[in-house]
This record gives sequence, structure tokens and C-alpha cells, in this order.
Amino acid sequence: MPAVTYEHIKTCKQSGARLGKVHTPHGAFETPIFMPVGTLATVKTMSPDELVEMNAQIILSNTYHLWLRPGEDIIEEAGGLHTFMNWDRPILTDSGGFQVFSLSDLRNITEEGVQFRNHLSGEKLFLTPEKSMQIQNALGPDIMMAFDECPPYPAEHAYMKASVERTSRWAERCLEAHGRDDQGLFGIIQGGEYEDLRKQSAEDLTSLDFPGYAIGGLSVGEPKDIMNRVLEETTPFLPHNKPRYLMGVGSADSLIDGAIRGIDMFDCVLPTRIARNGTLMTSSGRLVVRNAKFARDFRPLDENCSCKVCASYSRAYIRHLIKSNETLGLRLCSYHNLHFLLTLMENVRQAIREDRLLDFREEFFESYGFNKADAKNF
Amino acid sequence: MPAVTYEHIKTCKQSGARLGKVHTPHGAFETPIFMPVGTLATVKTMSPDELVEMNAQIILSNTYHLWLRPGEDIIEEAGGLHTFMNWDRPILTDSGGFQVFSLSDLRNITEEGVQFRNHLSGEKLFLTPEKSMQIQNALGPDIMMAFDECPPYPAEHAYMKASVERTSRWAERCLEAHGRDDQGLFGIIQGGEYEDLRKQSAEDLTSLDFPGYAIGGLSVGEPKDIMNRVLEETTPFLPHNKPRYLMGVGSADSLIDGAIRGIDMFDCVLPTRIARNGTLMTSSGRLVVRNAKFARDFRPLDENCSCKVCASYSRAYIRHLIKSNETLGLRLCSYHNLHFLLTLMENVRQAIREDRLLDFREEFFESYGFNKADAKNF
Ligand SMILES: [Zn+2]
Ligand SMILES: [Zn+2]
Repeated sequence: MPAVTYEHIKTCKQSGARLGKVHTPHGAFETPIFMPVGTLATVKTMSPDELVEMNAQIILSNTYHLWLRPGEDIIEEAGGLHTFMNWDRPILTDSGGFQVFSLSDLRNITEEGVQFRNHLSGEKLFLTPEKSMQIQNALGPDIMMAFDECPPYPAEHAYMKASVERTSRWAERCLEAHGRDDQGLFGIIQGGEYEDLRKQSAEDLTSLDFPGYAIGGLSVGEPKDIMNRVLEETTPFLPHNKPRYLMGVGSADSLIDGAIRGIDMFDCVLPTRIARNGTLMTSSGRLVVRNAKFARDFRPLDENCSCKVCASYSRAYIRHLIKSNETLGLRLCSYHNLHFLLTLMENVRQAIREDRLLDFREEFFESYGFNKADAKNF
Repeated sequence: MPAVTYEHIKTCKQSGARLGKVHTPHGAFETPIFMPVGTLATVKTMSPDELVEMNAQIILSNTYHLWLRPGEDIIEEAGGLHTFMNWDRPILTDSGGFQVFSLSDLRNITEEGVQFRNHLSGEKLFLTPEKSMQIQNALGPDIMMAFDECPPYPAEHAYMKASVERTSRWAERCLEAHGRDDQGLFGIIQGGEYEDLRKQSAEDLTSLDFPGYAIGGLSVGEPKDIMNRVLEETTPFLPHNKPRYLMGVGSADSLIDGAIRGIDMFDCVLPTRIARNGTLMTSSGRLVVRNAKFARDFRPLDENCSCKVCASYSRAYIRHLIKSNETLGLRLCSYHNLHFLLTLMENVRQAIREDRLLDFREEFFESYGFNKADAKNF
């Protein structure tokens, strides 16, 4: 029995979206799901208790960042990431590849791996498929990701083809190097906006029989319709009995549109990042609570929200905290935004159960304002 | 019946310390007590839930800061400070005087009040006894403080005498201007290190029959033995049936030594301020968790602590968070330090009950390291 398995519960008759459950050594989570990001073994400003309270079922952490700080050896010595950060539900770690490609200006990609500079110290580092597996084995998450190249958008077809092929070879090396059978290793499909390369990448990787597949290289600057088209062109090549993970996506519209295209898992720093700037997702759209118009607004952030922040605090108070750079302001905004996306996915799962996800999408988009001409992404 | 009353429970036979209860419109708190400081209507990094969880029975907030941000009118419109910040236990606000004297370089003291510059905007402001009362009436705490002058240490006898007499006249004006009978107004005794002026100030203020008295102008840079001497010279002039509040004191040794000298209430930003730098108070003394030696130390901050931080997180994890500037690190350190002082005062109250506060002091000082020649204050 693999460490990570997918249980399919039902398919939405209206949309084709999948309702399922992913089983891991630290328990199961329901899909489609949003995974809060805890880059440095902490979901920014939140405590694990609060994440449990809002029913976060799985969180993500970043291999690259933990490798640099505090170092995977310390986390291993602590008994792994779960013990280190006091979180006993499932954890997924990425491979480090995305940060190597996005945070480092100076990098040199070879067949062996990637040489780059530590974004904190400037020190030269070398990351390979084997090294990524060794770090992730030491960190001990339930789900690990294969080390891939994530080319920028746009990229030439020729470059992308060479990259996809190298990523497939790296995926094989990852499987070879992965040393623990209590962790599930997911493959990552690349190929940018090119249908033929997405197909090639999907076929390469599914032939290796990973317990799950991610679709990478999206939400890197391309328009939404390209993302949706790529999903539609890629998911048909993915096995039905494995979870599918769309990396780096966290705007409400994209979560719904991804679920409709058969995606099971999502992650993004968006809800916590915008929260720290006093920007909230609410049932009636985006709300920038630091704006002056909320100074005497004693209503909750979102009158339709059931979170504890909306039960106890006013916009006026939260605005005051954010304007005064008080930590509690960041906490309250982060809590509400995470709760908002987790609840959204609960509602998505309920809509799948009721075979009405397209209707739900319409209602949600209308209320949020995504149907407006000048709609923002979140 | 005054809004705030003191119920004396017992006097420690060994030390003379008082065990009591202060009744307020938002419930009672036990004394001697430590009051966490919530400068801007939030105890830095903490949520009200967490303060309740650690059994903070009363908190303090700062009139000067709230006057500037968000403005007392907004807090009044919210229904007062309790509603605004979601805290339904007792609140005490200071008068603004201390900040006017400590934060503003340019100030001009007249009989009428103090002209000074807003430390944020540079704008000229004027604070008077009447204005301080008006703001505190709008904020709506259970306990308000009279507007006083807090001269620096050291100050000449002649200056201090004139200041004490003006503070007494201001106290009368405060009583006159105080407009709500559901708030208790405390007088503040000044006089620096001068026994005759402390006596004069105490006699002036007690003649005005406030429901409680603070001792101000201490912990402003004078040696500990001077503080203790001043307390011994001042408390005999204070009525037994009113609470006594030593302002701005929060180091563990001073809390115990203050209680022994008949003090009931204390406040200080110390536990949260040092927490944000990764410095902890523990049963065996000061611990600077950001130090390298804790990188692989998987023990709790304090093995004798019953707080939830010490139950769930290691020094190594908290060090990692602090080194990485992660908010959760500030939260966990602040929580532990506040819990430490609140628990200390619980233990002080228990020692009074058992007539053994001097023994408790000896044990605590020995374990904390206050008896060492190079002992730090916290
Ligand atoms: Zn909410
Ligand atoms: Zn503790």
C-alpha cells in the first residue's frame, strides 16, 4: 500500500469536478482542497491551533527555505517537520525548484542540477534531484514533490521542450533517490502553454507511476484563460485514481475554475500575503480595510462569514490595528482570509455533492464581482 | 457605591503584603496583580482570547496613544474600549501624562497643562487635566488615572516640590472634570526620591478621597533600593481600604518586592517588549532563545512552566522563528512571558495566603538568579 492514496467519492454531474479523499500517514483530507502555505514551518502569523480551528486539513511548507533556515538536519533531529512545528495533520513540501528559479538571479542549469546563490547569504549552492529528495526525506512531510524546472512565462517552445525532457529525467532520478516508503512522492507536469509538451510531460510522468501529480508552471504570469486551457488539455492525460495538484493558485475564481477542470489540491501564499497589507476576501468581493472609509465602520469584515474574527471584531478596529502596524491586525486578516478560502472549498465540495458546481460558480462570481469588467483576481 | 472598590482579604503575617480583590463594573480582579499593557488597544502580538486563556484579569491601555490613533471619538462611537477591542474584563487607562513627558522632546508645562508635539506627526497638541478626563471618559475604561507630571530622575528638590503641588492641583481639576460615575478615577502620588514630598503628595491626594492611588515617578532610572525605600516611605500614608498601584514596574523581583511593601497592582511593557527580541523569563532566570546554543535544544522554554507554549514548542523551533522574523515567534515568546508574570503573581497571592511571602521571595530569587552578584533585573 503506497503512503498516499486517492479515494474517489463522486464526480459532479454538472461540471465534471471530482470529490475525493486523499489518505496519508497523518490522516486524510477531503478534496478539492486549499492548502495554506507555511513557508518557514509556520503559516505566517497563525498558530497551528488556529489552523485546526479553521479546519485546515493539510498545509504546505517550502523545502528551499527550510534547507537554508534552520536546516533540514535540525528538523530531522527534532523528529521531523510535524513535531518541529507542532502540526500533526498532513504536510506537503515542494521540491525547492520553484524558489531556485524565482529567487535567485544567478543560476546555472545543467543536467546534473542547478547551481545558484542563496538569496540570504549569497553563498553558492547546488540543488539536484537527489539533494531535494534527501532534504525532503529529512523533513518528513507526507507528500513530497519531485525536483523540476519551472521555466518563466513566456518561454520558447524549443527551450520548453528541452526543459520538459530534463524534468522527466530528473523525475526518474527523484524516484530512484526517494528513500522512505512512508512519504508519497508526486511528479510535476510542466510544458508551459504548449499542448503537445503538456501531453508529453504528462505521458512521461504517468509512465513512472507516481502516487499523485502536480501541474506546475501555471500562475506564473500567464492570462487566466491560458491557465484554464492548459488544465483542460492536461488533466485528460492524468490517471483518475491519483490526486491532482495545481501549484501556486489561490485566487477564489481560479480555485473554482480549477476544481471544475478536475483539480483536487491547491496552494498559494495569496490569502496571507494580501492579509498583511490589510486586503480581505469577502463574500461580496475584495475589501481593503486600511482605507479611510472604514475608520468608523463597525460592521465585521464580512457579514456572511462565520469565522471568529467576523464574530468579534469590527472593520474600524482592524483598520486601526493595520494602520498602527499591530501584529493582531495581521493575525485577524490572515485568519479571515484563510478561513474564507477553506470555507470556499467546503462549499465547492458541497456543490459537487449536489451536482451544482457550475451554478455555485455563477452565484459566487456574481456576488464576488468576478463577472464585472474590471474584476480583480481576488 | 463607587465604581471601583477594594476588598481586603488578608495580610501576610510574614511580610505584611496584602491579599485583596478590586471590584469594577467589568468584574473583579485579585491582588496583588500584574496588568499586561495594551498600548494601542491590543496587547502586542496577543489576542484577547489568549489573554483570557492565561487568566489576565485586567489590562492597561494608553490614553495618549489612543487619543492620537484611532482617536477617542472612534472608540466612543464603537461603544468604548471594551467593545472596540473585544475585551470584557476590567481595563485601566493611564492619563497620557507619562507619554507626554517621555515621548515629546519639545514640551512646555504651564499651570493650565502641557503643550507638546505629537510624536507621530509633529503637530502641536495641548493636554490638560480636563482633556485627559474627557478622553478617558470617552474611552470608557473601568479605572482612569489623574493627569500628573512625571518628572525625570534625578530632579532637584525645588523643582519636584513645585511639580508635586501642581500635580495636586491638577488632581482636583481631574476630579472636577471626571464625568462618569461608572469609572473609578485614581490619584497619582509623585515626589521622586524625596520622603517629605512623597508624604506631602500622599496627604494632598488622599484628602481628595480617590477610590485608589498610584505611586508614580518610580522605575524611571533610579536604583532598586531607592524604589523600595520610596515605597516604604509612601504606603504608610495610603488608606488601607483602597487599592495601590505601582506604575511601570514589571521585573519579577520588583513585583515581589512591591507586594511585600503593600502594593496591589503593577503594569509594564517589559514582558512583551523583551519577548519580541527573543528574551524569556523562566523559573531558572533569563533565557535569550535567539542565541546559537539553542539551535538544537528541543526542550521547552521553561521546563517548570505550565503554559501552552512550553507544552508544545521547543527552544529550537522558537529560535528558528525569531531568527526568521516570523510573527509566531513573537507570539509564543510574548505568551510565555505574560503567562510567567501572571503565574508569578498567582504564586505571590498563594504565598500571602500561607503567610510565607518572604520565604517564597528567597526561593524565587535563588532559582531565578537575583541573588547573584551580576543579576539582571529580569
Ligand atoms: Zn471572517
Ligand atoms: Zn511557558
